Amino acid sequence: MTLLQKLNWRYATKKMDPSKKISPDALERILEAIRLTPTSSGLQPYKVLVITNQALKDKICAVSWNQSQVAECSHLLVFAAWDNYTPERINASFDFTIAERGVGTNERTENYRKNLIANYPPRGPEVNFQHTAKQTYIALGFALIAAAEEHIDATPMEGFDPDAVDAILGLRDQGLRSVTLLPLGYRDEANDWLLPLKKVRWPRKDFIIERA
Amino acid sequence: MTLLQKLNWRYATKKMDPSKKISPDALERILEAIRLTPTSSGLQPYKVLVITNQALKDKICAVSWNQSQVAECSHLLVFAAWDNYTPERINASFDFTIAERGVGTNERTENYRKNLIANYPPRGPEVNFQHTAKQTYIALGFALIAAAEEHIDATPMEGFDPDAVDAILGLRDQGLRSVTLLPLGYRDEANDWLLPLKKVRWPRKDFIIERA
Repeated sequence: MTLLQKLNWRYATKKMDPSKKISPDALERILEAIRLTPTSSGLQPYKVLVITNQALKDKICAVSWNQSQVAECSHLLVFAAWDNYTPERINASFDFTIAERGVGTNERTENYRKNLIANYPPRGPEVNFQHTAKQTYIALGFALIAAAEEHIDATPMEGFDPDAVDAILGLRDQGLRSVTLLPLGYRDEANDWLLPLKKVRWPRKDFIIERA
Repeated sequence: MTLLQKLNWRYATKKMDPSKKISPDALERILEAIRLTPTSSGLQPYKVLVITNQALKDKICAVSWNQSQVAECSHLLVFAAWDNYTPERINASFDFTIAERGVGTNERTENYRKNLIANYPPRGPEVNFQHTAKQTYIALGFALIAAAEEHIDATPMEGFDPDAVDAILGLRDQGLRSVTLLPLGYRDEANDWLLPLKKVRWPRKDFIIERA
């Protein structure tokens, strides 16, 4: 299948078959695609939780308007963004990148670092969390395509109580806040009301604006 | 190449070769991938501008810290999100989806519509713009992968003055606000300082949290 065929195949699966589990190899490829996602200034300001514990999935389902795919999925991903940008976090990212590249630092890199440290932390945690949360949506896009590549279903979800999920997973103590859920698994073809319905998008003419 | 090989091939290109143009067919496939991107409640609350006009690219480059890829790219994409959720916009989306599916409406759909109209517009334009902006980042992820699929370089960019870009493109009058830029084109292999540097990401152990 081409990429466009995969994007037409995928849909926001509402009902998953809990008896079908995704393979460890496929899971690792999806996680690696997420890890390779680019982010603003390369900070990767989030972590990804991979939940297979059924009791945890059930608890999260209960604070997600009981949307069944949360409990019935094979693996539940939770994208959890940094609750703030701090000098420590920015420095850790720069120091790690410099060490990995093994070519020492330079004026451009150090000016970039100073600029972020001077500008990000003073904006305060709410502005910064909006920014870190946005980065997780790029990763959500990568995860959706990586799952479709494996013929694995995935349901991008904002419809849950983030404070409750943070409490269930102990995220705030780790400086994290939940942003989106992504159940991964296999569609229950016979019982998903959304599957037979046409995928609808704005037509190109109403969506793309050309300035030649 | 596998998806992971493509994700390792891509990087945030800093210097593009302005003599190389992307083909119309490849461009259409990238735009179609963007169009197929899922969004919260299926509202697709943004438009995508495709800019080939050199004078416009130059003007936007000048308010993007003169990052040269903005002027030198083949096609400049601008992701521009709705400045607010209004009952009119929500109704237009629901009405279009119902018409396209051709199966009439139902109680679930109408309750969903009523819920969005009751809850979104009262939150105010700033909260709503944060939400519409987030949706564009999923599309940014889709665009990055669709470009890599075509062996086309792309540079995701937040580093520009959004108010200035809004003014240059007349976005506010259309109820839109610029969120990200995505120059598309071809790397200038001899002159891009970033190309020889290692791609760095947090290791899996520091990035993935498993709850089994």
